[in-house]
Amino acid sequence: MKKVGLIGGIGPASTVDYYMGIIDGYREKTGDAHYPEVIVYSIDMTEMIASIEENRLDKTADQLSQAVSVLHTAGAEIIAMASNTPHLVYNEIRSPVPMVSIIEATCKAIQKMCFRRVLVIGTLFTMRSGLYTTPLKSLGVSALLPTKEEQEEIFALFFPNLENGIVVAEDKEKMLSLLRWIIKEQNADSLLLACTELPLMIRQEDMSVPVIDTAKLHIEAIVKAMITEKQD
Amino acid sequence: MKKVGLIGGIGPASTVDYYMGIIDGYREKTGDAHYPEVIVYSIDMTEMIASIEENRLDKTADQLSQAVSVLHTAGAEIIAMASNTPHLVYNEIRSPVPMVSIIEATCKAIQKMCFRRVLVIGTLFTMRSGLYTTPLKSLGVSALLPTKEEQEEIFALFFPNLENGIVVAEDKEKMLSLLRWIIKEQNADSLLLACTELPLMIRQEDMSVPVIDTAKLHIEAIVKAMITEKQD
Repeated sequence: MKKVGLIGGIGPASTVDYYMGIIDGYREKTGDAHYPEVIVYSIDMTEMIASIEENRLDKTADQLSQAVSVLHTAGAEIIAMASNTPHLVYNEIRSPVPMVSIIEATCKAIQKMCFRRVLVIGTLFTMRSGLYTTPLKSLGVSALLPTKEEQEEIFALFFPNLENGIVVAEDKEKMLSLLRWIIKEQNADSLLLACTELPLMIRQEDMSVPVIDTAKLHIEAIVKAMITEKQD
Repeated sequence: MKKVGLIGGIGPASTVDYYMGIIDGYREKTGDAHYPEVIVYSIDMTEMIASIEENRLDKTADQLSQAVSVLHTAGAEIIAMASNTPHLVYNEIRSPVPMVSIIEATCKAIQKMCFRRVLVIGTLFTMRSGLYTTPLKSLGVSALLPTKEEQEEIFALFFPNLENGIVVAEDKEKMLSLLRWIIKEQNADSLLLACTELPLMIRQEDMSVPVIDTAKLHIEAIVKAMITEKQD
């Protein structure tokens, strides 16, 4: 088994999902009575969001590279970031060990599931960047985005509750009716939850199109990397 | 702020409570918009329980000392174990940085709250050892234990569900009626939950005497140590 190092804290609620998901997923997949060793480095989300908002992505990459270095020193053999947003600087992070990307895991799954018109929602940073749209386009998949106004409306429903793992019923209703409208308007065949907290609020049974849970796909890819002898 | 290193995985559900409790507790106590950095090393619970069951406590201490060493290397300035049971070997663990003991935090609180007859329940290892009974006695507090048969009945309700964070209604009912009986029989004035998973099952409103939650007291002591400049 390869020891996983998890960069967490962005936000804490999704770190908990990753941690439990990795332990349960590993034990289920291997049937092992033992528990996998996992190292979590929970960083300061406020600092990360500030550097992204200032458009100082070099600082974001530095903060994450430092977290990678801590995890590597602590013995991590593979590393993953328990969040979509920091993948903005994925290619700028210096890591001496392989990293498991949420974008790669998700795009592979979308290709396998043959979706053609994927509505991408996430933090403003994720929606405004080409984080999912660029790799999806290169796979010949139409990555649809909410309008600028809709993006702001969606992101306003993240803070402060959802980012701390709390789903407010009123916020959920607003989010669902907005998403149903956009899906119809843009004729999307699937909904990509490109933020690891969104599955707390948006469930498959709430929507008429398939919901793609990036955190779930990422956790599966991490567990696979833990038990695969050679990285693919 | 002092960076906390948490030895987790014993079990994973209680690690999650500690992680969220430390982050929320720190932010609440300091009013800081930033999130504290926390490092969690989740170890193999199966290995730890095996060495305790074999009565090879030297191996238990080794496993925990190694986890301490990893956390220290990763930058932890104070260390805590998110579980009661490993405190069996607390004095045998080699740590270059201060550790925050759940036993010490709990005994201090019991003394402050002036309880005189405390019923101690936890894992078999905890109940059979003097983990709480010895320090409580030295404070002049009567530490009461269930009979040998009752201890086994209590511990049987831990696995496999509670240890994985799942409360089965039927198990809870059995536990509560057993505890109510023992409390009456032994004339206890309080109930000490000396296992970090027990608060998931036993709530204050379930009992007629005050319930002492060791995990909650431990988390408070950890947060205090994080923000205190000098260790006391």
